[in-house]
Amino acid sequence: MIEKMLNVPGMSCGHCKAAVEGELNALRGMEKANADVATGTVEVYYDESKVGTEDLKSAIEEAGYTVAD
Amino acid sequence: MIEKMLNVPGMSCGHCKAAVEGELNALRGMEKANADVATGTVEVYYDESKVGTEDLKSAIEEAGYTVAD
Repeated sequence: MIEKMLNVPGMSCGHCKAAVEGELNALRGMEKANADVATGTVEVYYDESKVGTEDLKSAIEEAGYTVAD
Repeated sequence: MIEKMLNVPGMSCGHCKAAVEGELNALRGMEKANADVATGTVEVYYDESKVGTEDLKSAIEEAGYTVAD
């Protein structure tokens, strides 16, 4: 398991939080995704043998947001 | 039919717009509800013999927002 913090600045409300967390939590190997709208960050805790950083990026884009560097 | 503009300042994104419009459009007698996130307003066009202003307020509150005076 590995923990990572992602910058997702486009989130503005609870619906955005739910959309981002929903897509991330649907990934096989994702243990927990927690989005913080106020700081524009998402904390993810996942099995790195099953999930790659590209998968995280894709899931967030699927929800309609972009990961900033 | 009557047209009215409501102030709903709490909307911040497309999800908010969809939530507010969805609740309003579910009212029997609502012809069209169009929320504008940028201006914090919702334009409603409805049959005033079926929908009252309290119904509009309740629907918006149901979506999680408040109508400002």
